[in-house]
Amino acid sequence: MTTRPTTLRSTTSTTSTTLRHGRLHVAIPGPSIIPERVLAAMQRPMPNIYEGPLVDVSSSLFADLPKIARTEGEAFIVIGNGHAAWQMAVSNTMRRGRKVLVLESGRFAVVWGEQAALSGVDVEVLPGAVDGPVDPGAVEDRLRADVDRGIEAVLVVLTDTASSVRNDIPAIRRAIDSARHPALLMVDAIASLACEPFEMDEWGVDVTVAASQKGLMTPPGIAFVWANDKALAAHERADMRVGYFDWESRLDVDAHYQLYNGTPPISHLYALREALDMIFEEGLENTWRRHEVLARSVWAAVDAWGGGRSDGLSCGIATVECRSHAVTTVRTGSVDATRLREVCEDQAGLTLGLGIGADVDRQFRIGHMGHLNPPMLLGTLGTIEAGLHSLGATIGSSGVAAAARVIGDAFA
Amino acid sequence: MTTRPTTLRSTTSTTSTTLRHGRLHVAIPGPSIIPERVLAAMQRPMPNIYEGPLVDVSSSLFADLPKIARTEGEAFIVIGNGHAAWQMAVSNTMRRGRKVLVLESGRFAVVWGEQAALSGVDVEVLPGAVDGPVDPGAVEDRLRADVDRGIEAVLVVLTDTASSVRNDIPAIRRAIDSARHPALLMVDAIASLACEPFEMDEWGVDVTVAASQKGLMTPPGIAFVWANDKALAAHERADMRVGYFDWESRLDVDAHYQLYNGTPPISHLYALREALDMIFEEGLENTWRRHEVLARSVWAAVDAWGGGRSDGLSCGIATVECRSHAVTTVRTGSVDATRLREVCEDQAGLTLGLGIGADVDRQFRIGHMGHLNPPMLLGTLGTIEAGLHSLGATIGSSGVAAAARVIGDAFA
Amino acid sequence: MTTRPTTLRSTTSTTSTTLRHGRLHVAIPGPSIIPERVLAAMQRPMPNIYEGPLVDVSSSLFADLPKIARTEGEAFIVIGNGHAAWQMAVSNTMRRGRKVLVLESGRFAVVWGEQAALSGVDVEVLPGAVDGPVDPGAVEDRLRADVDRGIEAVLVVLTDTASSVRNDIPAIRRAIDSARHPALLMVDAIASLACEPFEMDEWGVDVTVAASQKGLMTPPGIAFVWANDKALAAHERADMRVGYFDWESRLDVDAHYQLYNGTPPISHLYALREALDMIFEEGLENTWRRHEVLARSVWAAVDAWGGGRSDGLSCGIATVECRSHAVTTVRTGSVDATRLREVCEDQAGLTLGLGIGADVDRQFRIGHMGHLNPPMLLGTLGTIEAGLHSLGATIGSSGVAAAARVIGDAFA
Amino acid sequence: MTTRPTTLRSTTSTTSTTLRHGRLHVAIPGPSIIPERVLAAMQRPMPNIYEGPLVDVSSSLFADLPKIARTEGEAFIVIGNGHAAWQMAVSNTMRRGRKVLVLESGRFAVVWGEQAALSGVDVEVLPGAVDGPVDPGAVEDRLRADVDRGIEAVLVVLTDTASSVRNDIPAIRRAIDSARHPALLMVDAIASLACEPFEMDEWGVDVTVAASQKGLMTPPGIAFVWANDKALAAHERADMRVGYFDWESRLDVDAHYQLYNGTPPISHLYALREALDMIFEEGLENTWRRHEVLARSVWAAVDAWGGGRSDGLSCGIATVECRSHAVTTVRTGSVDATRLREVCEDQAGLTLGLGIGADVDRQFRIGHMGHLNPPMLLGTLGTIEAGLHSLGATIGSSGVAAAARVIGDAFA
Repeated sequence: MTTRPTTLRSTTSTTSTTLRHGRLHVAIPGPSIIPERVLAAMQRPMPNIYEGPLVDVSSSLFADLPKIARTEGEAFIVIGNGHAAWQMAVSNTMRRGRKVLVLESGRFAVVWGEQAALSGVDVEVLPGAVDGPVDPGAVEDRLRADVDRGIEAVLVVLTDTASSVRNDIPAIRRAIDSARHPALLMVDAIASLACEPFEMDEWGVDVTVAASQKGLMTPPGIAFVWANDKALAAHERADMRVGYFDWESRLDVDAHYQLYNGTPPISHLYALREALDMIFEEGLENTWRRHEVLARSVWAAVDAWGGGRSDGLSCGIATVECRSHAVTTVRTGSVDATRLREVCEDQAGLTLGLGIGADVDRQFRIGHMGHLNPPMLLGTLGTIEAGLHSLGATIGSSGVAAAARVIGDAFA
Repeated sequence: MTTRPTTLRSTTSTTSTTLRHGRLHVAIPGPSIIPERVLAAMQRPMPNIYEGPLVDVSSSLFADLPKIARTEGEAFIVIGNGHAAWQMAVSNTMRRGRKVLVLESGRFAVVWGEQAALSGVDVEVLPGAVDGPVDPGAVEDRLRADVDRGIEAVLVVLTDTASSVRNDIPAIRRAIDSARHPALLMVDAIASLACEPFEMDEWGVDVTVAASQKGLMTPPGIAFVWANDKALAAHERADMRVGYFDWESRLDVDAHYQLYNGTPPISHLYALREALDMIFEEGLENTWRRHEVLARSVWAAVDAWGGGRSDGLSCGIATVECRSHAVTTVRTGSVDATRLREVCEDQAGLTLGLGIGADVDRQFRIGHMGHLNPPMLLGTLGTIEAGLHSLGATIGSSGVAAAARVIGDAFA
Repeated sequence: MTTRPTTLRSTTSTTSTTLRHGRLHVAIPGPSIIPERVLAAMQRPMPNIYEGPLVDVSSSLFADLPKIARTEGEAFIVIGNGHAAWQMAVSNTMRRGRKVLVLESGRFAVVWGEQAALSGVDVEVLPGAVDGPVDPGAVEDRLRADVDRGIEAVLVVLTDTASSVRNDIPAIRRAIDSARHPALLMVDAIASLACEPFEMDEWGVDVTVAASQKGLMTPPGIAFVWANDKALAAHERADMRVGYFDWESRLDVDAHYQLYNGTPPISHLYALREALDMIFEEGLENTWRRHEVLARSVWAAVDAWGGGRSDGLSCGIATVECRSHAVTTVRTGSVDATRLREVCEDQAGLTLGLGIGADVDRQFRIGHMGHLNPPMLLGTLGTIEAGLHSLGATIGSSGVAAAARVIGDAFA
Repeated sequence: MTTRPTTLRSTTSTTSTTLRHGRLHVAIPGPSIIPERVLAAMQRPMPNIYEGPLVDVSSSLFADLPKIARTEGEAFIVIGNGHAAWQMAVSNTMRRGRKVLVLESGRFAVVWGEQAALSGVDVEVLPGAVDGPVDPGAVEDRLRADVDRGIEAVLVVLTDTASSVRNDIPAIRRAIDSARHPALLMVDAIASLACEPFEMDEWGVDVTVAASQKGLMTPPGIAFVWANDKALAAHERADMRVGYFDWESRLDVDAHYQLYNGTPPISHLYALREALDMIFEEGLENTWRRHEVLARSVWAAVDAWGGGRSDGLSCGIATVECRSHAVTTVRTGSVDATRLREVCEDQAGLTLGLGIGADVDRQFRIGHMGHLNPPMLLGTLGTIEAGLHSLGATIGSSGVAAAARVIGDAFA
């Protein structure tokens, strides 16, 4: 038997002041901050699962989920995490041994491809940058070269949580169309759905994948797939079907449990209902705009800290248009990113996201998604700045001051 | 597009008194009553998922789960419901197109088989009763006939939630052994794990499947598979592997997320931790004993109501030794079971389980699992009795009085 | 320094089975069961206390409280328990050294009088029974004899929590009127407001006192006084005013805090709002009717257990019309009430109210108020019956069976 | 009938962006932020109030409360707000018509005196500043002049919540001693107990008053009085006793309810237990040090914004040594404080304290007490800075940058 969990690092270093004694703030790029209303909604006894109010909640969720992805297509709720939604997307549409083209741009699309490969698909990765977006031209070239149309789907992420790059999905769609290729366009929007514009139907996305714990402000445990008619048609001929994930019984429903292929995820359904209510109360487009302002304030802070020096802090994604509005990877130049994260956590109760990739001491990540407003974000940035001072880092100018300026300018 | 959810029955009939105004009691056979401690444990902000306290919680859960199934084997937590655990068990151990033998005894083993078939296995059902246990002799006969050893696994339930039958797992193991057959014995213990004796290693079970929402007193959303060395060896040659469920990355763990193949189900991990603490505080064997007393009190109530009359109420499983300690299916004779359930819910705030199978007006089910003690169970039985009076049903004698007698006799 | 708390009995005897492992049920006559909705409403961060939504909540509460006492008079919320409301009633209306007449009927009116005496009033107790109601004729006689009108107020309880007697307030009003006496009629309705009929204005009550933790289903911590014009006029000449309790600044309000004479009891205001919503959703008169059915089922159970034997169980109040609908004191005859309470708590998780008065081993109390429905009450009665069996008590017939019959007959 | 609540301003102005959509942050000087642990502790069903675990909680609280005030004296818990604790202090120790000397320094000591006067004491106010501390020399002079020792007590606040001044209690004690005056020294520490040094016994304080909702991180609803032997001796001859508040039955306790003179404030006792645990985990002196760092960062921010300009922002209390560590009143110079508060609340979800006193448009207050750490406080300061930008205010330099510097320097 393995002793797997015990080998994991479980504790953080000890603190020597008590300044952190207050509400601990976790600013990792997901799970995001769960609103009190959403947590409270989970605080309920188990209801009847065959009929009654829970069935009404389910109905309302399936009616509302397409609005979040901006589609007339079909939504599926899978009990599972983002990896489960990846699986549902692939298992329901692909054929064993046929090819999918994974568009590399950071890390997560490639991992999706690895999972698909293990499940029986032939996976080809179109090489890309670890810190930049997919090149639509390269996509078009590769698809043009696929003369026998062996590629059945193109897999890409909207935002890569590792690099914080944001891909130009409409441009990728145009590339596919220019190549006159019939492949399905499957987009992983896990990291930023409801944080930045995403228009499934208008952009020509065939399958969208998301999960609860980022912009949807719900604890991890459920995930989502949206499929348009082209994807549902692909399901008809798919031969990699897996019972748990299968769409057929989830579409032809005459008992409530079929929506979830078994017992429904009751607590999460209550939570999601509350979270979607919050988004609709704000207005989805307002939510996008809020995230944009908050993201710009983060970038202003990083730019100010960096001060244009070559060994200063900088945003991991150089081109502003390619940056996600939900997460920012920060390169720390000569500053030890691990020590910075530790001092923020130990001294001030702020948890930053560790960088994913080789250079863990030279980058960290800030999640700025979901239930987030100026006091929360400026507190994060101010604490990072305190940490930089504490480490004796040279900064260009005050980042939190710059961020406060961006936010103040956005007030009505 | 389908309009699937809207066709479901969502509302119950209206009430005309307000006697139900109090704590609504749901006595369906799962999800069971979630303890306040467990619900409270879910009321927490999201932590760092890479290191820190959450990793400690994970480690403790993987250390404790084998104790619940009484095994030295490996435990897996899958984000999903019981159907997901079914899938994990089959996908990790079976080979495409090879055979599994499903032992019918009620409904759920057969549904498991249907899911396995859709996923690529050749499924054979050994016919059994809808209201009785598996016949070990028939199992032995069938396996002896499998001279070329094409059957790779035997699938059976410990308790069938529909019929409330309890199978004699050790006898089935002996049947397999008598036939000298190498098939894996895979047991679905979803409906009653931690409610009645289950000894995975001692009984020779190779794979056990369970879920959170029954005896484990945790909301639905995570499920469990335990595998012994023989099952892990089968995984080595399995060819139906599905990425999301795959054991390999879950066993060879150097990052916390691998335990869950992606983002961990944070709220449920906290909940499960609290629930396991409660079971260990009570003592697992004491938990089994408590369920036995409560089950006997239910049977005493049904017997009293029935009064031995042919058209009276009776337990769905005639043989006491074959009854589950977690759920009881009650046949209602000349009483309209649907009206009885409606009057209990509408007038008194008690939700009973509807019968699964053709005869929904002639049976109902009482869940008596998990977080349950005499005031809760006697309240359920007393309300059913009030409902019987209300419908003008002829009863032999007071069932709740008989149940109170059984429980009083069990007091120390 | 005293070591006061440490001398108190803090632990109950240990249990030797684990049947109690489920939801512990506390059936004492207050604090009553707090609904989940009410507890959840308290789970909120602190708001602005000067303006905004909290002020709206306050406004709505002051608008709704008179409906609960059925008055056009003024309502006051005092942060405190029932004793604080007693104090507010007396301090705002009485004059130092003048007389109040306390109508004895059980225990609590006398204790109210003791508190008033310590605060400076001359208190006379009109002797009454410890297990019976006030005799209106005796009240009339005493007031007729008060020729110089020295008595400024008559203090009486609606329900005495100790004896479970219920007084005939309209008859007491008629007695005062027949004596043509100007004394204020001040009624302590703490134990049963919102559980049984109470019509402040119609019955001619001048001051009503209540608290949150009984029929109003809110944790203890706030209490209430209602005053009509006659009482408010008495305030004008009162000379025992105490700053904290004083009505003047609470009536002439231009800042929110004045309603509470300082910082508002935020959590309790949220809780009360939810509890009043629940009462209005049910309909106050429906709430009264529900309590009547539940009370009758308790009495039926006690009568059945007693079986008419002289040493059997019996209701503490012989006359049905004089019994409260919120609490029942049970005399246990030859049964040891202390052992019965202990066995119910230790073995089954049911806490009964101990008898107040000399004979703690020969009586106990059942609270049946507030958030209570048939499953909860029948569970209580069934468990008491199990306890009686366990102690080898002779009972006439099954009490829980009799109660289930009463409840079943009340179903629509 | 009055229509008192309806005349209150209940709503804030509407927002026109949605940047505020996140966790609303209330930075008023109390009620402070309630920790999640404390709120969760209130989420419990009502227990037995006569014996069992609740009695243990009570015992532990009475054992621990003296540690918070640093005294060997007796602690009392009163269900009520700070005004109730004021009342308990005065009613238990004073004599009707005798004199107390109130030391003016801001607003709240004077209000305490007004309450005492209404309750029957002769109150003399020693005039002081609205924005400065008590002058100990003036106290000594006044007491020396009291040759017949008519003054029975001196009332003073540790921190005045309105002005944010902090008095030098040891110096006031020395003044009393220098005058060889026997008056009791009664200190209202409501606004900052557990936030800044307070040593009841060492400093010679006879009676201390506090409440739950500031440094003690518990929702409003309970308050505290500590009394030393001299104060308890005064109780013996006091003649203004009020039953509800009376110490006698609270000291001579043989039943649990006597500690609270009636039903205990159950939810708040659980909450306070958790809050005290948090303070002891941190260490009370560490808590004081944390508040000092946070307070210095606030002052640094205000100083930076002000930039030394005469019409710029400034701390309301000029002398650093006289500033409270729990609250800061900020004078806004030429900036409209009301508009600043409105823009922070409407645009960013930050609620600031309004100034108390005539000049509401020229001052606001920041509470920085209790459950507070750098991310929370820097978020507050950053948002104020954004608000200042939004209003086009001229600021000296970035306040949040200055605060981050102070905090970074304090990291270990």
